[in-house]
Amino acid sequence: MSVAGFKKQFYKASQMVSEKVGGAEGTKLDNDFKILERKADITSKALIEVMNKTSEYLQPNPATRARLNMLNTVSKMRGQESNPGYPQPETLLGESMTKYGREMGEDTGFGGALADVGDAMKRMGEVKDALDIDVKQNFIDPLQAVADKDIKDIQQQLKKLEGRRLDYDYKKKRQGKISEEEIRQALEKFEVSKEMAEMSMHNLLETDQVEQMSQLSSFVESLLQYHKQATQILEEVNDKLRERSAPRITFFFPSFPSSRHSSPSVPLPAAEPQCKALYSFEPENDGELGFNEGDIITLVSQIDENWLEGRLHGKTGYFPNNYVEVIVPLPN
Amino acid sequence: MSVAGFKKQFYKASQMVSEKVGGAEGTKLDNDFKILERKADITSKALIEVMNKTSEYLQPNPATRARLNMLNTVSKMRGQESNPGYPQPETLLGESMTKYGREMGEDTGFGGALADVGDAMKRMGEVKDALDIDVKQNFIDPLQAVADKDIKDIQQQLKKLEGRRLDYDYKKKRQGKISEEEIRQALEKFEVSKEMAEMSMHNLLETDQVEQMSQLSSFVESLLQYHKQATQILEEVNDKLRERSAPRITFFFPSFPSSRHSSPSVPLPAAEPQCKALYSFEPENDGELGFNEGDIITLVSQIDENWLEGRLHGKTGYFPNNYVEVIVPLPN
Repeated sequence: MSVAGFKKQFYKASQMVSEKVGGAEGTKLDNDFKILERKADITSKALIEVMNKTSEYLQPNPATRARLNMLNTVSKMRGQESNPGYPQPETLLGESMTKYGREMGEDTGFGGALADVGDAMKRMGEVKDALDIDVKQNFIDPLQAVADKDIKDIQQQLKKLEGRRLDYDYKKKRQGKISEEEIRQALEKFEVSKEMAEMSMHNLLETDQVEQMSQLSSFVESLLQYHKQATQILEEVNDKLRERSAPRITFFFPSFPSSRHSSPSVPLPAAEPQCKALYSFEPENDGELGFNEGDIITLVSQIDENWLEGRLHGKTGYFPNNYVEVIVPLPN
Repeated sequence: MSVAGFKKQFYKASQMVSEKVGGAEGTKLDNDFKILERKADITSKALIEVMNKTSEYLQPNPATRARLNMLNTVSKMRGQESNPGYPQPETLLGESMTKYGREMGEDTGFGGALADVGDAMKRMGEVKDALDIDVKQNFIDPLQAVADKDIKDIQQQLKKLEGRRLDYDYKKKRQGKISEEEIRQALEKFEVSKEMAEMSMHNLLETDQVEQMSQLSSFVESLLQYHKQATQILEEVNDKLRERSAPRITFFFPSFPSSRHSSPSVPLPAAEPQCKALYSFEPENDGELGFNEGDIITLVSQIDENWLEGRLHGKTGYFPNNYVEVIVPLPN
């Protein structure tokens, strides 16, 4: 440190001690400045906390979050890769479902359903990848840039301003011992510093916030896009599952011509629709009809999309349609 | 251990050594049984892995996941509480946004927008709570019950079957030394055990899977419900943000009657719509119009929902409408 530099440090330290220990009054910054400083402080804290909590929201697992934070969205944008370099939990779930679904056999009801849902979850992982990249690029990174540049600038300028204020107050107190010119220069430096700090803070509060409004909108739009895509993926797989769980009708004519009407001269037993139990069903509630695997149940009516009414061994009751396969009895 | 129990253990151990070390051939289980065992094994692994990966997907943070796994959905169902006892990352982000939005002042553009998005994120946290409780109750818990009961039963029965097989093979090898009756009883026990293991495995592969199909559907439906609700919340806040970023028109008659037509005998200057710059705008591209805060710009036309065309100091160009406040000049 130069002699001049050392002297400057000494003046500032000396003034600080007089104020802190001796209770000396320093030059006060005006009220407008104080309000501006307070506003800039709140905004800085807001931007940094919102940025951190957005990362936690996107990737709640700390290990993956570290990799999200390192994600270089500029190179991602250029388009070689479309995934952020870490697997999404929906992708891992999807891969596991698809793998086991295939091992069980996609022709089995559950294996097939599991493979379908697994494919959907893998697509959910892809749209989550896109969300992470979008939000990182259009919301987190710009906030980080403000924190790294503008907020850091303000902090440095406020620190410099405080130094120049201490220097000015030290010299002012020694009026007579220190030349008027030197005191005037110290005041001028203090005022230039104050103006620069004000400009930086205004910049954060006004110009930057126009940008941040649009970044906040882009965050909401990315989320909206993601949830819409997820809804579509899930609606598609929901339809697939409905098809799979619909009763497996092999040969069923509800309007099978009753022999009594079409050919009265050849009496045949009326063809009643029937179904065969694929699994045993244990009734749990009043009105339900229990049966064993392989039983042939006479169908009475369809209650809704999941329940049928049937008759077995003289008893009538309800049962879930996915326990049976509907068949049509041929006239003997 | 009783003497009989000790003898039994000794027989089994002795037979196991003959088979493992001496290469003796034990009674083979039939192929159908082997296929069934393999299928039950795949299904067991599938259910357990899918259950675990679903928890990881719902709560990727290990700390929160532990609390999800302990979540007692039965008491939640009874309705005292509607949150699972841990904060969602969207709730934390929302609370931080709302807090800072209010501190900045909801009347300021960015503060108000931040508070709006914060409220939306808190609602997103509520629908995520509902998703966690739904999926825990209708998907994870039933799978856990199958793992705790049915899969455990199968494992115990297969272990018992292997024990009885070793006992039978040991006795069979000592034919002559051991009474025919004792050998017949060992075979019978082995066969009863085999039948019971088969029944348990069939149960897992058939009856249980009917339930699992419906649980998988309920998982997809819960996710679908969640993403639909999230989409709605985000659409609402998106509309709010659009309103906020629309140009703030204080007093603007686009169809202000031109004095030339309405009262030709009293010549007044034509009322031209104008706007006042709220912030300085630095042009970045050709055709953009730069200005300083406070400048009064004459409006030429509206380009789209975000851009206006105006004239200042004889120059015409485009600028974003959120930098200005539109005013109407009164005829002097």
